[in-house]
Amino acid sequence: MIVKHGMNYLTVLNSARNHKLAPPLAVLRRQQFLIRVLGVRGDNRMQGSKFEADSDNILRAITPVFDPNRHKGQAGKIAVIGGCREYTGAPYFAAISALKIGADLSHVFCTKDAAPVIKSYSPELIVHPVLEESYSVGDRDRDKDHISRRVVAEVDKWMERFDCLVVGPGLGRDPFLLDCVSEIIKQARQSNVPIIIDGDGLFLVTNNLGLVSGYPLAILTPNVNEYKRLVQKVLNCEVNDQDAHGQLLSLAKQIGEVTILRKGKCDLISDGEIVKSVSNHGSPRRCGGQGDILSGSVAVFLSWARQLILADEGNLIISPTNPTMLGCIAGSALLRKAASLAFEDRKRSTLTTDIIECLGRSLEDICPAC
Amino acid sequence: MIVKHGMNYLTVLNSARNHKLAPPLAVLRRQQFLIRVLGVRGDNRMQGSKFEADSDNILRAITPVFDPNRHKGQAGKIAVIGGCREYTGAPYFAAISALKIGADLSHVFCTKDAAPVIKSYSPELIVHPVLEESYSVGDRDRDKDHISRRVVAEVDKWMERFDCLVVGPGLGRDPFLLDCVSEIIKQARQSNVPIIIDGDGLFLVTNNLGLVSGYPLAILTPNVNEYKRLVQKVLNCEVNDQDAHGQLLSLAKQIGEVTILRKGKCDLISDGEIVKSVSNHGSPRRCGGQGDILSGSVAVFLSWARQLILADEGNLIISPTNPTMLGCIAGSALLRKAASLAFEDRKRSTLTTDIIECLGRSLEDICPAC
Repeated sequence: MIVKHGMNYLTVLNSARNHKLAPPLAVLRRQQFLIRVLGVRGDNRMQGSKFEADSDNILRAITPVFDPNRHKGQAGKIAVIGGCREYTGAPYFAAISALKIGADLSHVFCTKDAAPVIKSYSPELIVHPVLEESYSVGDRDRDKDHISRRVVAEVDKWMERFDCLVVGPGLGRDPFLLDCVSEIIKQARQSNVPIIIDGDGLFLVTNNLGLVSGYPLAILTPNVNEYKRLVQKVLNCEVNDQDAHGQLLSLAKQIGEVTILRKGKCDLISDGEIVKSVSNHGSPRRCGGQGDILSGSVAVFLSWARQLILADEGNLIISPTNPTMLGCIAGSALLRKAASLAFEDRKRSTLTTDIIECLGRSLEDICPAC
Repeated sequence: MIVKHGMNYLTVLNSARNHKLAPPLAVLRRQQFLIRVLGVRGDNRMQGSKFEADSDNILRAITPVFDPNRHKGQAGKIAVIGGCREYTGAPYFAAISALKIGADLSHVFCTKDAAPVIKSYSPELIVHPVLEESYSVGDRDRDKDHISRRVVAEVDKWMERFDCLVVGPGLGRDPFLLDCVSEIIKQARQSNVPIIIDGDGLFLVTNNLGLVSGYPLAILTPNVNEYKRLVQKVLNCEVNDQDAHGQLLSLAKQIGEVTILRKGKCDLISDGEIVKSVSNHGSPRRCGGQGDILSGSVAVFLSWARQLILADEGNLIISPTNPTMLGCIAGSALLRKAASLAFEDRKRSTLTTDIIECLGRSLEDICPAC
């Protein structure tokens, strides 16, 4: 009825407040919320109808069937590079999300200060206190070179064991630390280990695109601001929401062979060849940390998709065929579902840990374990 | 039906994927899972029919009846030697599992870096920050000798109080630390304290078999890779799954008097005299940390079995009669039941902490406290 009369909801709301009409605030708020959510979905569908990914079926196709003959590690070994004196929550969120989805082992490589804290969040993670920030490194270049080589070697000795690296959650912007992380990215490329770049990893990569350019196993997961900086840097223009799909395609193509997951009310994903959107579910709550869940989730799904595609030797019909696209679609869809379940339960007080607790149920709803 | 027609399940799955048959993925996954699980059980039964341990009855026989006259410590005092800069979760899992099953006191001896973190996981544990890694020890041999003697003495002063030692969870591979742990193992042998060797403890022992050879109170609990290394080192050949029982028997005999629990989809146990298998329950989830639960559980059951056998002065009819065999059978059976309960509830998102939470209920199901 409100829609029929074309009234502005804020007017209705204020009118209700002023005149103490029944039914009052609670009902109006509910209507207002539903209309907004439905409105958003409507926009997305219009925008994404032919682009919308078949995310539930993709999730079902790439999530491995349980097999009692498999042993520890075969369902995925993920490593997060991040966690410094300032930030400890982000790498934890990414690493624990990977385990909650079904990875067998989840490592974090962080600074010495961050390690005891991240360890204390959960005994399930393997946390390596190996990164160094400028304040703990001597001024002499010889010392810096020595420490940098040691840090990179500490991570590299594990590299071959990892199915995917997540670079960036809680990384910070210390120049010495970022230099070491650049070398770690180079090592990962040499070992053909897929890399998800998020958070401060995107700051690093935006200023040095060569780190990921031409690497088809790299995924960038920018939020609004990170995307804006990427567009400005690479395409030398502003974000164009009228041609969001085209611009994302150009951006991925221009950087070269990477896949980009542009986070937003509707997630857009492109590898420079095609564009897909994921717009189902989701939550209006924007608490910090959801991007970290996403990066950890994409890491697991990308690993599974890659394993499946490599094992299937071309017999598998799945679309899209690029494992980075599949990983992004599945990760995005699962996070959106978990966020909506958590919001249903917790409303305004929804936190990232509540969403993480819904990851298992969300995956089970779409893709039962047995 | 799938079995009747002798089809390969991956073919069925791919066929369904390709042709979009109804009923689709979810139903096929369910069928596939059930057939795999039943298949495995079938294999195990065929393989293990005459070897399958009567694990529920063994659990009931060795778990002590509550007696209000008993005092703190009489239901078991366990110590875990492990926990270093990198690993803190593993010793926690082993130590807390011992308590959750019914031990009265659970100690952890770890490095100074690991101690505050392990303490933070639970106030129930007694955590001793006494181990040292090379980076915190001077280069001079005199310093090393001095520190090593101090470390060993710190553990040894507690030794007589312990009913069982678990050596290895989260131990790491630092050479200085492993040298100290070798001495601790020798002290435990002198005091006739049973020892469970797991994780990096197996790395140590595989390279120095004399540490456990000829000690009937030693149990080794290798996983797939650790077992492979042991077989290569001791029997100078590869793992032979066609004669898994015979090879395990030879391995235990060759090392000399030790008991080996070979972890897998079906757990195999041998003391060089007999072989038993435990294949009931279990879960297809292979998240890291389950081996630590097992080592802590075996420690408790071995202590109880030994106490019972020593107290009964030969009147007890129980088979097998070796307390290390009984401890392994009971520990394996309980972990498998707890893992299956946790998986029933949490599915893909099952983590080691979820399994630990099911230990109490699992034991209660088999062997009610009162």
